[in-house]
Amino acid sequence: MINTIDYHHIFSEIASEFKEVDDLGAIANYIPELGKVDPTKLGVHLTTVDNQHYAFGDADEPFSIQSVAKVLSLTLALKIMGGDLWNRVGVEPSGSPFNSLVQLEYEKGIPRNPFINAGAIVICDILVTCLDDPKNDLLAFIRKISGIDSINYSSKVAESEKKCGYRNYALVNLMKDFGNIHNDVDIVLDLYFYLCSIEMTCKELTNAFMFLASGGMNPIINERVISLTRTKRINSVMLTCGFYDEAGEFAFRVGLPGKSGVGGGIVAIHPGKFCIAVWSPKLNAKGNSYKGMKVLEALTTKTKCSIF
Amino acid sequence: MINTIDYHHIFSEIASEFKEVDDLGAIANYIPELGKVDPTKLGVHLTTVDNQHYAFGDADEPFSIQSVAKVLSLTLALKIMGGDLWNRVGVEPSGSPFNSLVQLEYEKGIPRNPFINAGAIVICDILVTCLDDPKNDLLAFIRKISGIDSINYSSKVAESEKKCGYRNYALVNLMKDFGNIHNDVDIVLDLYFYLCSIEMTCKELTNAFMFLASGGMNPIINERVISLTRTKRINSVMLTCGFYDEAGEFAFRVGLPGKSGVGGGIVAIHPGKFCIAVWSPKLNAKGNSYKGMKVLEALTTKTKCSIF
Amino acid sequence: MINTIDYHHIFSEIASEFKEVDDLGAIANYIPELGKVDPTKLGVHLTTVDNQHYAFGDADEPFSIQSVAKVLSLTLALKIMGGDLWNRVGVEPSGSPFNSLVQLEYEKGIPRNPFINAGAIVICDILVTCLDDPKNDLLAFIRKISGIDSINYSSKVAESEKKCGYRNYALVNLMKDFGNIHNDVDIVLDLYFYLCSIEMTCKELTNAFMFLASGGMNPIINERVISLTRTKRINSVMLTCGFYDEAGEFAFRVGLPGKSGVGGGIVAIHPGKFCIAVWSPKLNAKGNSYKGMKVLEALTTKTKCSIF
Amino acid sequence: MINTIDYHHIFSEIASEFKEVDDLGAIANYIPELGKVDPTKLGVHLTTVDNQHYAFGDADEPFSIQSVAKVLSLTLALKIMGGDLWNRVGVEPSGSPFNSLVQLEYEKGIPRNPFINAGAIVICDILVTCLDDPKNDLLAFIRKISGIDSINYSSKVAESEKKCGYRNYALVNLMKDFGNIHNDVDIVLDLYFYLCSIEMTCKELTNAFMFLASGGMNPIINERVISLTRTKRINSVMLTCGFYDEAGEFAFRVGLPGKSGVGGGIVAIHPGKFCIAVWSPKLNAKGNSYKGMKVLEALTTKTKCSIF
Repeated sequence: MINTIDYHHIFSEIASEFKEVDDLGAIANYIPELGKVDPTKLGVHLTTVDNQHYAFGDADEPFSIQSVAKVLSLTLALKIMGGDLWNRVGVEPSGSPFNSLVQLEYEKGIPRNPFINAGAIVICDILVTCLDDPKNDLLAFIRKISGIDSINYSSKVAESEKKCGYRNYALVNLMKDFGNIHNDVDIVLDLYFYLCSIEMTCKELTNAFMFLASGGMNPIINERVISLTRTKRINSVMLTCGFYDEAGEFAFRVGLPGKSGVGGGIVAIHPGKFCIAVWSPKLNAKGNSYKGMKVLEALTTKTKCSIF
Repeated sequence: MINTIDYHHIFSEIASEFKEVDDLGAIANYIPELGKVDPTKLGVHLTTVDNQHYAFGDADEPFSIQSVAKVLSLTLALKIMGGDLWNRVGVEPSGSPFNSLVQLEYEKGIPRNPFINAGAIVICDILVTCLDDPKNDLLAFIRKISGIDSINYSSKVAESEKKCGYRNYALVNLMKDFGNIHNDVDIVLDLYFYLCSIEMTCKELTNAFMFLASGGMNPIINERVISLTRTKRINSVMLTCGFYDEAGEFAFRVGLPGKSGVGGGIVAIHPGKFCIAVWSPKLNAKGNSYKGMKVLEALTTKTKCSIF
Repeated sequence: MINTIDYHHIFSEIASEFKEVDDLGAIANYIPELGKVDPTKLGVHLTTVDNQHYAFGDADEPFSIQSVAKVLSLTLALKIMGGDLWNRVGVEPSGSPFNSLVQLEYEKGIPRNPFINAGAIVICDILVTCLDDPKNDLLAFIRKISGIDSINYSSKVAESEKKCGYRNYALVNLMKDFGNIHNDVDIVLDLYFYLCSIEMTCKELTNAFMFLASGGMNPIINERVISLTRTKRINSVMLTCGFYDEAGEFAFRVGLPGKSGVGGGIVAIHPGKFCIAVWSPKLNAKGNSYKGMKVLEALTTKTKCSIF
Repeated sequence: MINTIDYHHIFSEIASEFKEVDDLGAIANYIPELGKVDPTKLGVHLTTVDNQHYAFGDADEPFSIQSVAKVLSLTLALKIMGGDLWNRVGVEPSGSPFNSLVQLEYEKGIPRNPFINAGAIVICDILVTCLDDPKNDLLAFIRKISGIDSINYSSKVAESEKKCGYRNYALVNLMKDFGNIHNDVDIVLDLYFYLCSIEMTCKELTNAFMFLASGGMNPIINERVISLTRTKRINSVMLTCGFYDEAGEFAFRVGLPGKSGVGGGIVAIHPGKFCIAVWSPKLNAKGNSYKGMKVLEALTTKTKCSIF
């Protein structure tokens, strides 16, 4: 089935169509460092489970993957802690913006899922508890599962966000008050801001996320990352919670599990088939890449190929 | 791939395992008529897209399908009205109980999705506007797509719910106040209560929902119900919104699009493969069949086969 | 102390000042019948506990008192039922708009106070339970305590509101679902809409509310209405809850217990001194008379005389 | 009128009655240092505007006045900044617990009133901006208006609260994110925690708050604190907002403007008549002194003397 789709041709079509498309999004400006990126960038890279590659645009240029990285920290925390992790963070869509405190207060400091900010901060707290050297160990894990040793944090971006991340300080303190943060709040947020600062290219992202398309094993470097069951669960949480309060819209239009970041990146998975990464910096009102979502919608429309 | 799974054997296993399982759920008691059902009933029926059937237990006994029917009214409304329907109801998970008014007030009378009560009531309002004889035309549609002429409303159940459905009267009036109900509230709720009162067996349910497993066409009776694109969208909305505030949990544990009802029924779809219906009347705290969810989890665990 | 204030002179000042004041409010338009009133009307009437009268403008013209009447229905319900009434409705400010369902759902159908719509509907439910002929008995009570036999409902206004009062239907059904409405919802709302339709002049209002300024006794007609303790409690609830989510603002600027209505009327009480009624139909964004609040602020500023 | 009430006799009655009253409250335990106080303490001190004193119990023992101090910081901020202060904090009751973030997020970082934690933190931010040496200047102001030079912070209590005040860190960071905190969050909270740590006796409290009972002038030391108009406004905000989500209940039962603290203290004002302070450490479910509220209710019931 994979072979029957001519991704090459489809990508040419999409590339030429999107030259004409107006970008109605806006650059994330609450993190000053992110505001400096060229807003016209557009990159796409698709890697199939049998290591075929299709790309266009700025697919080899590194950018700040931001919340896309939360899938990788979740994966590591699940490997270490197992299912007990779900006592501290849920698997339900939040129905609220990514940084809302309302639901968190009503639900006594248990975040709805590991992809809203509060949930990703709890995952960082777990990693701080379990790892000897959290920042280095997490980075080493991401390098290993992707097979790319050059992946790195951007301390410039991390420190930029730290200076203005008041909302995240509010979240971590609220959860600390409810007893759902076990470590010092500054240490936990330091890991969180560095996690979000990771820079990768679209191509590298498909390598790092390939295990989710092939049952927990990265077939390109022959590295098992996590079990089949946990792979399916991560995919399901991406589908229901990967796009903040636009998760339903993404499932509806694109029909693939995925995760977005305010840097304009989106990774999406077709289990058993491929992993695709898209990057376009301008965001829609919900904080997801405006063009990125349109590219992915065009892809699944043209291929008639989604999980549904 | 379908043939490689021995459903026959798996169903025997599940059937014998579930004889021992304690049912920790409770019968829905807010609709008096539903309280009269035998709580020990358990039926399962799976129909593959090539018309293979696997079943056990009370699969041939009719029961009140309740909210499961909301998928069928949505399908009809989509056929008639097309995508404009989505201006009046969203596709996002609600993050709230099925009958909550809170979100509806904050969001000015636009329900989050067509499967929470408010959304299903808006769909009924659309049908009242578009159909000559809403109750009869809707029933005719369901009979036609399932190929089963004996499917019917239970006026006993409908009238029982009408007498105590104050919460639904609150919802419809709140939406009327916001301008999102165009017809008389009593006429709209009459259709809504009758819709929810439909009685079917597990086997019949798989017939009626089979089009969602096979690209919009019911292969058993060779009847096209709706287009491929809309089929995928209905499946995606079932996945993200089909289980109230437990949608994430169902996606996480079962990994299939589905829809539950307070009568204890659940229908789930594996696109391209099968449709399965389960019935067990006792509900968990979120209002979904306690045993029904466990049966479906056992099925996808044993078959290692979900959309993720 | 009463004698030392020259109300006559102060009223002349206010009357001449307010000729120049732009009215930035807007007529309530959700009740069609109210939309027909002349928006330039302005009437004020102050009656002291020793039966001195000061007035200007349209003080003798009847208007729809709307929610101002909720103080009188509460008074009657308290007389009949006593303190047990407070098990079914609270005495706390709501912090929300007058017709919100959000808090009512979170707090399981117990309205915050008897002056928001939900609370006034519960009071009507109590009156329906306790009175032989609720509509006539309530009217008789109001006529008796004011000494004015000509006070009446406007069936035109009541029926106009009934036709578009969907929000109130939502509220009553939500409370019925929670078990806090004991009678048929239509009968309860009928009394509620008639209560709100009462028409009185500013002068008549000061007669009807005079008992709150003099310890529960209407000194003008020598009629005890309710005990001193209950009088103080009604005044305190007016102060904390009489102006929807602008109660704090009114206490802050005016400093008197009072109650407003969407017909543009406000009644305020200076315990031991006077009762004042103001009428100006245009409302501010919170639903209280724009000029009415300004007149009362001018009065207490000029007299340096508030309860604080 | 003051003379006609025999406070001496009434206090004897109350003192003997309260020996028998079970204290159903509980000590605030979220600030460890507060948990060390003797829970059986009960002190009352009433000072009239003509400097008569009535007291019983532990009225001369210092305790942590906590949120009671927020009236004094508001007074100083109003003196310095004037009415512009009300652009940054409202005067409406919150309808929510004292430390809730929900409303603050919905209302974009503008606290409902200056007495909930968020509002008092904004007041501290204003003082940090306006004062040369905020901690010393604030203390000097309190000493001056009370005429008591020995009043002091408890650094033990302040530092104890600082170590566990995560909820307040959440609040200040959320408001910083909305732009309603202008200074460094740690400096602002330092002032806040010290403000709340002030220790005073019941007698000293009546001295410090006496200006609110006599039009802005402390008659005992002949010191004008603030204007008459602002005095009335502070009193009105105490009445509508001084007891968290129990403000209505206090107005209803006691009928005086007042302010409570989690140390078990309550100050109440009868404008033109007296200032009273009560201390009893065990709190009811809403965070207000259980016995303190009962003592004040007994006082106004026995004297038949409230502002209503």
